[in-house]
Amino acid sequence: MKEPILHSYFRSSTSYRVRIALKLKGVEAEYVAHHLRHGEQRADAYLALNPQGLVPSLELPDGTVLTQSLAIIEYLDETVPEPPLLPADAKNRARVRSLAQMIACEIHPVNNLRILKHLRQTFGADDAAVAGWFRFWVAETFAALEQQLADSGATGTFCHGEMPSLADICLVAQVANNGRFDVPMEPYPTISRIYETCMALPAFIAASPSNQPDAENP
Amino acid sequence: MKEPILHSYFRSSTSYRVRIALKLKGVEAEYVAHHLRHGEQRADAYLALNPQGLVPSLELPDGTVLTQSLAIIEYLDETVPEPPLLPADAKNRARVRSLAQMIACEIHPVNNLRILKHLRQTFGADDAAVAGWFRFWVAETFAALEQQLADSGATGTFCHGEMPSLADICLVAQVANNGRFDVPMEPYPTISRIYETCMALPAFIAASPSNQPDAENP
Repeated sequence: MKEPILHSYFRSSTSYRVRIALKLKGVEAEYVAHHLRHGEQRADAYLALNPQGLVPSLELPDGTVLTQSLAIIEYLDETVPEPPLLPADAKNRARVRSLAQMIACEIHPVNNLRILKHLRQTFGADDAAVAGWFRFWVAETFAALEQQLADSGATGTFCHGEMPSLADICLVAQVANNGRFDVPMEPYPTISRIYETCMALPAFIAASPSNQPDAENP
Repeated sequence: MKEPILHSYFRSSTSYRVRIALKLKGVEAEYVAHHLRHGEQRADAYLALNPQGLVPSLELPDGTVLTQSLAIIEYLDETVPEPPLLPADAKNRARVRSLAQMIACEIHPVNNLRILKHLRQTFGADDAAVAGWFRFWVAETFAALEQQLADSGATGTFCHGEMPSLADICLVAQVANNGRFDVPMEPYPTISRIYETCMALPAFIAASPSNQPDAENP
């Protein structure tokens, strides 16, 4: 069978999420890099596939192009059931999705590259202001995420029990992103512990930014 | 059976999403209002339920508190299957989730109340700058959303075929929100058509901000 094609950028944390899911599922995918800082995602050939010009997208062998990282990961989970990235029970699935969405719908959207660029252009934000913005929105949600993870009996070795899930995927990609703005991690011992646990697993290591074909020196 | 409790605010577009889903599913829920502009979501009793102090949350009869609107809606869809809010086929499910996430992960997070407040406080943004910010991020994604909906044969009376789905829920709540910042809708005829179609249905009408117990005059 032909492999799907992952359209990615090594530093994109939403691409990182999909890379982790592919590795956890053992799905091989051809890697096509689009250099966001060079605007390669705006090239005509890519816009024909994905009119938004965003990464990631997953191009299936039949030509279907899937977009939005969480939608892609849910697709992978539905079509390649093992190992599951969501628990079996509806309440637990809601818990894992909620933890994932705290990151995917609260932190990442307000901190991604195009927002930070726009802050510079529109409000004249300098490097310090941009870094302050990034750290502020991480802290807003990470404080709650840490509390939820620390307080819940459902939290285990990973965000939910003893298997990596959609929530761990989002957590790891966000923590990696935080490193670019020196977000202090001391207030988040549970998040940090889960991050370290994940980063000892081959799937998370293989998916990490520095191990992609388009990786650059920091 | 006891009803679940929906913690909501009439103007909150994420609460609006969950209200639509409850009405479409025919699930009765007790409505508890938290006035966001008065900071009621930060009251101790509510923080004990939802440490983030965000609406919506859905408190189930057994005490489980579900958070994050999309996670709540997927829970409803899994536990109350009819009418389905996602298609049966994995690729189509990915399409609907992706359309929903374009709104939920790209537009809404950068335009919600706390972000707009923060822009005022941090960058001294005035009313015009805040409205400009809001309109800019709607336009960024609505242009692509309009194109995807207009170009795809999968689009029907609704975002996907002939039944309202998770995508329509997000679309309607966003379009309603746009009205508060006079976002011009002429560039988006397909989005506008779907919005009008939805707003003729009893579930969408009953869920709308002006029909909530805590509604205020505009």
